[in-house]
Amino acid sequence: MKVIKSISKLRKELQKGRDKKETIGFVPTMGYFHKGHLSLIRCARRENDIVVVSIFVNPIQFGPHEDYKRYPRNLRRDALLAREEKVDYIFCPNVNTMYQSPHHTFVNVEKITDILCGLCRPGHFKGVTTVVSKLLHIVQPDNAYFGQKDYQQFVVIKKMVEELNIPVKIKLCSIVREHDGLAMSSRNVYLKPKERIRALALYASLCRARHLIKHGERNPQKVITEMKKILEKNFNKIDYIAILNPDGFDSIKRLRGKIFIGVAVYIGKIRLIDNIILKVK
Amino acid sequence: MKVIKSISKLRKELQKGRDKKETIGFVPTMGYFHKGHLSLIRCARRENDIVVVSIFVNPIQFGPHEDYKRYPRNLRRDALLAREEKVDYIFCPNVNTMYQSPHHTFVNVEKITDILCGLCRPGHFKGVTTVVSKLLHIVQPDNAYFGQKDYQQFVVIKKMVEELNIPVKIKLCSIVREHDGLAMSSRNVYLKPKERIRALALYASLCRARHLIKHGERNPQKVITEMKKILEKNFNKIDYIAILNPDGFDSIKRLRGKIFIGVAVYIGKIRLIDNIILKVK
Repeated sequence: MKVIKSISKLRKELQKGRDKKETIGFVPTMGYFHKGHLSLIRCARRENDIVVVSIFVNPIQFGPHEDYKRYPRNLRRDALLAREEKVDYIFCPNVNTMYQSPHHTFVNVEKITDILCGLCRPGHFKGVTTVVSKLLHIVQPDNAYFGQKDYQQFVVIKKMVEELNIPVKIKLCSIVREHDGLAMSSRNVYLKPKERIRALALYASLCRARHLIKHGERNPQKVITEMKKILEKNFNKIDYIAILNPDGFDSIKRLRGKIFIGVAVYIGKIRLIDNIILKVK
Repeated sequence: MKVIKSISKLRKELQKGRDKKETIGFVPTMGYFHKGHLSLIRCARRENDIVVVSIFVNPIQFGPHEDYKRYPRNLRRDALLAREEKVDYIFCPNVNTMYQSPHHTFVNVEKITDILCGLCRPGHFKGVTTVVSKLLHIVQPDNAYFGQKDYQQFVVIKKMVEELNIPVKIKLCSIVREHDGLAMSSRNVYLKPKERIRALALYASLCRARHLIKHGERNPQKVITEMKKILEKNFNKIDYIAILNPDGFDSIKRLRGKIFIGVAVYIGKIRLIDNIILKVK
């Protein structure tokens, strides 16, 4: 496994593989790996000849009062884990390599970035699509892997790739959960022991929704009301509870077909998100 | 020469060449070829194994009151001319092929698109960068060719390509002029005979600027004042007269090194632009 910081060096290395008709799988991350990242890497490993993982805490997707500086980092540990998963290249550029100031070019997907997580994080998705488009141009992978945990991010990136004709397949991998159900997240390290327990209510609310729907409830508002009861008891602020069409986040009047149920809450200043996707008969 | 409307067909054709390690030169155009286009095509022909020319009148770079519908088109004539220049592929997609409505993804270069031609054409460059990024993803050329006539467009696209790490070389080709000095433009067909004569004042003002600078003038304001005298006599509206640094359009206090002199005027509703780039000792 090679750890590379330079764009031109990475390109040179990957060209060798491309010349041999080897396929490239790419997992863009902000590092501080948990089992969610590792499942993305394993998926890429299974499906490609070469696996590239980028580790880059992207400043432009953080708001001015968000946790860019505090965001957990541990390149040494990440490299050890990546090596165990038989990653071929870690690409970990400096901020100056990615953004030669002043940077003025942005990729933006309008409309679907104004809702859900985009509503309380203005500019977040613009930062994500810009950095992902840069990384896709640098790595030029055949396949790129994203986690369902950030489901809106997946939809936004899939739309960007389709509408800009970027030649890559975007793949979605399931959420990996702790044994008690909490979705894996690099930000879980922020939680104090008592908060860690309360955080379980997030997935519990989603399980409650699934249970209600399984037993015949088809009115999304009634499902949301029940979820709200669980969330209100445990979190000081609910950001959103949403039941929407998973393809373009259109609203749903009556539950049928594929549906996305997403929640976002705050414990103190820590923002937690989770979601499930169901098929309703 | 093949004329192709489908993205997947073009990609399949070009992949054959790429597999043989052939280089691809790309000339994006809106068609209605004049000698300016042909000089771009010749440049691409000299420097590449395969030449792709796109012909697409891009609706999203026109303002609501601009000439999208009226813009001159003649695919049959363009194809004949392209064949003479030994073009390999003409890519001429339909609007629905390029923009599957609703289209929400845009590439934008901020700041340098707010000045000069961007000031009176809000959204124009956003439309240009979006379509060019799409075309670059479709064609994946080694080299792409742009004319100096739209010099701001060249600077904006060069910046986009650099800041998004798009793997392509952007090349600039000189302005081609009519025998009397008028810069070639598809929009010149809009000019009535008397307007065609008055239009010469555009290049005359640039020649006057060059003359003044050659004879020692180093104050940009004095040069602009002299240019204005020529332009005011001939046009009902001057949009801008600008003397700037050609790399990022920074302002210049004293003329030295490489300088960009650009003008934009209106004859009736017809907007004409022209520019020169000088090296001042």
